[in-house]
Amino acid sequence: MGKRTLLSFSPQIKVVDATLRDGGLVNSFYFEDEFVKKLYQTNIQAGVDYMEFGYKASSAIFDKSKFGKWKFCEEKDLREIVGNNDSDLKIAVMADVGRTDIDKDIIPKNESVIDMVRVASYINTIPSAIEMVENCAKKGYETTVNIMAISHANESDLHEALELIGNSSANGVYLVDSYGSLYPEQIRKLADRYLDMGAKYNKFVGIHAHNNQQLAFANTIECVVSGVNYLDATVSSLGRGAGNCPLELLIGFLKNPKYKLHPILKFIEEEILKLKKSGVVWGYDIPYLITGVLDRHPSGAIDCIKNNRTDYANIYLELMGLE
Amino acid sequence: MGKRTLLSFSPQIKVVDATLRDGGLVNSFYFEDEFVKKLYQTNIQAGVDYMEFGYKASSAIFDKSKFGKWKFCEEKDLREIVGNNDSDLKIAVMADVGRTDIDKDIIPKNESVIDMVRVASYINTIPSAIEMVENCAKKGYETTVNIMAISHANESDLHEALELIGNSSANGVYLVDSYGSLYPEQIRKLADRYLDMGAKYNKFVGIHAHNNQQLAFANTIECVVSGVNYLDATVSSLGRGAGNCPLELLIGFLKNPKYKLHPILKFIEEEILKLKKSGVVWGYDIPYLITGVLDRHPSGAIDCIKNNRTDYANIYLELMGLE
Repeated sequence: MGKRTLLSFSPQIKVVDATLRDGGLVNSFYFEDEFVKKLYQTNIQAGVDYMEFGYKASSAIFDKSKFGKWKFCEEKDLREIVGNNDSDLKIAVMADVGRTDIDKDIIPKNESVIDMVRVASYINTIPSAIEMVENCAKKGYETTVNIMAISHANESDLHEALELIGNSSANGVYLVDSYGSLYPEQIRKLADRYLDMGAKYNKFVGIHAHNNQQLAFANTIECVVSGVNYLDATVSSLGRGAGNCPLELLIGFLKNPKYKLHPILKFIEEEILKLKKSGVVWGYDIPYLITGVLDRHPSGAIDCIKNNRTDYANIYLELMGLE
Repeated sequence: MGKRTLLSFSPQIKVVDATLRDGGLVNSFYFEDEFVKKLYQTNIQAGVDYMEFGYKASSAIFDKSKFGKWKFCEEKDLREIVGNNDSDLKIAVMADVGRTDIDKDIIPKNESVIDMVRVASYINTIPSAIEMVENCAKKGYETTVNIMAISHANESDLHEALELIGNSSANGVYLVDSYGSLYPEQIRKLADRYLDMGAKYNKFVGIHAHNNQQLAFANTIECVVSGVNYLDATVSSLGRGAGNCPLELLIGFLKNPKYKLHPILKFIEEEILKLKKSGVVWGYDIPYLITGVLDRHPSGAIDCIKNNRTDYANIYLELMGLE
């Protein structure tokens, strides 16, 4: 595929709003129904292509009393928000390898408002991810494999994983920069490897970026230029740790006139400011820069933020393992 | 020049800390001496190459009682902080076309601790900028021309401006994304034009980015890959409106072992948090996204932030000129 230019737009591009799913990692999925309903309407008005509502987590593994309903995404809860979803917005959920009871919790597509199941996996569990994909594909769903923590994968493992996915029923594969450690130059190189596989096996490629180094938006649009078509974003970056590619920046960038910025700005002023005021904390901050630079899981930074630590120089030494 | 890779580093790269100069636009240059002294020491420890202290504004034009001293950067005030500057850190100041009394306020280099005078100009005043450059070069200073608001310049004007600068005594020329509206793809194309001129006339090229779309860091490091050598940044983005490329992200990225992140993190925890607490407001926010997307001067957004407006959807319509 030829490189895209700024004045072109491609109808193959799909914007995936992951606000509830990645944001749910910040507030244990306790979103008010009002928030979720408004976000659903906002996404429809803004021309967003997919809305990911949360996880399909197994209630045998996770205690339902300790999480909001969007960790489980039961059919009745989805329908409470979207009815039969008479809209162009497709509904996605995420299923983690090892944390989902796929036989019990994923019903046949013709009984569900869900359109797409995204299977999240580390690179060493790709065979299990593919088993889940085949199960969901057989039930009638669109599917993806989202390979997490890609900055820690070695090249030969990645090659093998992409070949396995290429030969599976998955519709697409996602490049996931879980640690927000990758620079645009690295993202371009990785995207090219994914895109080569995608061209060979007719799979789309997606990008899911984190904002530890204020690069989530930049890395996402660099992927667009390369030919990546599925773009994850969240309103105001709402997501774990430093958060994600801000949906409002992505929609402002995309040239397809079907995308509208105004409804998203309205949602931010009406709902996101309220959420922030209520004490939910996320987004770029110095501890996330540190784990990003060091290419580490953000958990250490999340602990620092929770404990209101601002001794950044010490945090840096600690996370480097020098103290 | 060949493209750089992530594992290489180039000793030609120079990091320019513009915290006081661009940050002074936020607080009218009222920095405590303690802040300035600590920043100077921090830059030395961090391996920063230049520190821009402020403007050389004319006291005939600007009322000295209405600004802090770093709008004027008098020799005695500089020496109060740096003594004779017995360090590897070079001292820079900015001189605006039409706002500087170059004959009166720029003394001969051998009487000054200043090393570099950066002349800021819109594209239509380049001939005046070059006159100032020649004046300063004759006095013994390193000089640059910083072409502001480049997103509004047309291609033939830019060509002519670059040729004039190429034939001048300026040591370098700066690409300045004043409105924070440029995407990496555009920055790369512009940088290539600057670099072609630089190769022809032996001038270095610099980048000064703004963070309206969270792209200041990304655009800066994209320029590094292209061969741009002078990189402006400010601690914690401190600068007008959405601020600049964060120095801490840039230093975390650069591979030259002379650059150290630890002293900058220390400065942030000791001084930047205090400055924020004191009520100084800067950095990425939705109104800046809006002027960035619309490729407008940030003044409209700055007004909104000052007035604590959060009716983002209306601000968007207003700034588009629809209301």
